[in-house]
Amino acid sequence: MTVVPVALGPAPDPLLSDAITRAGAAVVPLPDAHALVWAGNDPAEFPDELPDAVRWVQLPSAGVEAWFGAGVVQRRPDVQWTSAAGAYAATVAEHTLALLLAGVRALPEQASATTWRQQEFFDRVGTLRGSRIAILGAGGIGRALIPMLTAVGATVVAVTRSGRPVDGAAETVPAGRTDDVLARVDHVVVAAPATEATRHLLDRDRLALLHPHSWVINVARGSLVDTDALVDALRDKRIGGAGLDVTDPEPLPDGHPLWTLPNVIVTPHCSNPPSLRAPAYADHVAENVRRFVSGTQLLAPIDPAVGY
Amino acid sequence: MTVVPVALGPAPDPLLSDAITRAGAAVVPLPDAHALVWAGNDPAEFPDELPDAVRWVQLPSAGVEAWFGAGVVQRRPDVQWTSAAGAYAATVAEHTLALLLAGVRALPEQASATTWRQQEFFDRVGTLRGSRIAILGAGGIGRALIPMLTAVGATVVAVTRSGRPVDGAAETVPAGRTDDVLARVDHVVVAAPATEATRHLLDRDRLALLHPHSWVINVARGSLVDTDALVDALRDKRIGGAGLDVTDPEPLPDGHPLWTLPNVIVTPHCSNPPSLRAPAYADHVAENVRRFVSGTQLLAPIDPAVGY
Repeated sequence: MTVVPVALGPAPDPLLSDAITRAGAAVVPLPDAHALVWAGNDPAEFPDELPDAVRWVQLPSAGVEAWFGAGVVQRRPDVQWTSAAGAYAATVAEHTLALLLAGVRALPEQASATTWRQQEFFDRVGTLRGSRIAILGAGGIGRALIPMLTAVGATVVAVTRSGRPVDGAAETVPAGRTDDVLARVDHVVVAAPATEATRHLLDRDRLALLHPHSWVINVARGSLVDTDALVDALRDKRIGGAGLDVTDPEPLPDGHPLWTLPNVIVTPHCSNPPSLRAPAYADHVAENVRRFVSGTQLLAPIDPAVGY
Repeated sequence: MTVVPVALGPAPDPLLSDAITRAGAAVVPLPDAHALVWAGNDPAEFPDELPDAVRWVQLPSAGVEAWFGAGVVQRRPDVQWTSAAGAYAATVAEHTLALLLAGVRALPEQASATTWRQQEFFDRVGTLRGSRIAILGAGGIGRALIPMLTAVGATVVAVTRSGRPVDGAAETVPAGRTDDVLARVDHVVVAAPATEATRHLLDRDRLALLHPHSWVINVARGSLVDTDALVDALRDKRIGGAGLDVTDPEPLPDGHPLWTLPNVIVTPHCSNPPSLRAPAYADHVAENVRRFVSGTQLLAPIDPAVGY
């Protein structure tokens, strides 16, 4: 039996080498490889040409719009591409829960207080218990988030392209009925992939459907929310607040109103920091190499037709 | 069949009147009552004498050390006293989770940032996933917290007086082995009742057992943590941070170092604000009146011998 040859790029990486070998494959130079596991974040560094023998490429990010934008995926439609969708889902879901709880419990303002403002915060501290939360896009992150929200007593309305029932959600609704959902939930989590179809998924009209106590959490991509409309809604106190791990533009420039508006928590795209990301990617790679070796369906296949 | 007569004090309260009547009892003046449901927070306002016919008193707080301190409970050891222990458990547990996640995810500092400090926060954002958390005292709050922590991938070591297994905890350890537990957990939640035995439960020696990344969350009573020792540990960065809904002294005076130390979140005893507290107490009262009427074991009986 020959050992399946897998290349690793753009640079040697002990954690990933170990993942590949413990999954039963061998790490080889790219010209000898049947698969390529990529660990670089910049699509411009990706090889212009892949050897004909390469049948599978693993990309390191969960959202792959940048790889489409640079034409990397389209150059070789005959190859099976996989993303890391799902690999970082648990940590990003945890960050989402942290942002939502911090918002509802008024923690940022309490953390910066320097005197005992109990009466004021009595009126500001809310609960997720008994609340209804829309998750726009129930991929890996959304699915990982559902049991966390359920554990604090919230119910979830999942909004997906198909509307096919999502495990653990009280309801799953097709994307065409997003407006109806937004009008009757307490909070909104944006966790959909960034595609042409999801640009400004939360636009001015949809933000206007939310309640004055609603928090908007975006852990997907900045482009899914209309930033100017969000700033206006926050300024006019038409929503409760926003927790943003991603922004548009990103990085958020100095002096942008989102830095100083109350009831906004910006975390600089760090829901999945390298320290948590590296071992999670290695586990994902190990599982996919195992599947590639045994010829079974790979995790997180990319569909060039839909862009993720 | 006569309807059980229950008094309500110190003032009329529609939510509680409704709870008492829907549980099958009647609201009557104290001289005619067999039970007293109390809604006031100040033990000094409690009646000096109770009619002989009163066999049960329901107090509105979960922690009842103030009622012992004022001698209220001791005056009538022949009466069955009950606390509201457990009634507010879910909301306080949610607050605990919010504080712990905010700490581990470095949210307070991120919320006050005004520029994109991604590299810095890459090194600061941690996770509860895979972490081990000690809960000191597994009463209502601790038990409500366990499934929330489990949902984010943490494991719980419950520390209780008896050490009898607590549902959902990976381990339950008797209080005599607290030191061993503190030395091998990532974070500590203080959720024990305030008694003579638990004063400075987290003292200087025990704080010294924690790790540099450990967060200390106190949602019980300020007296359970040695404040001066905590301030020193925070100043010297010997622990990761502290999330405190309760303090000693309380209210925390202006100018106290806890207000301005980084990595401290003080919430001014508002984990269970009146808006969440009132309906939760009414539900607790309704259940206990139902049990009193039917002669079954009441929720949250107070044991004068242990002080809670």
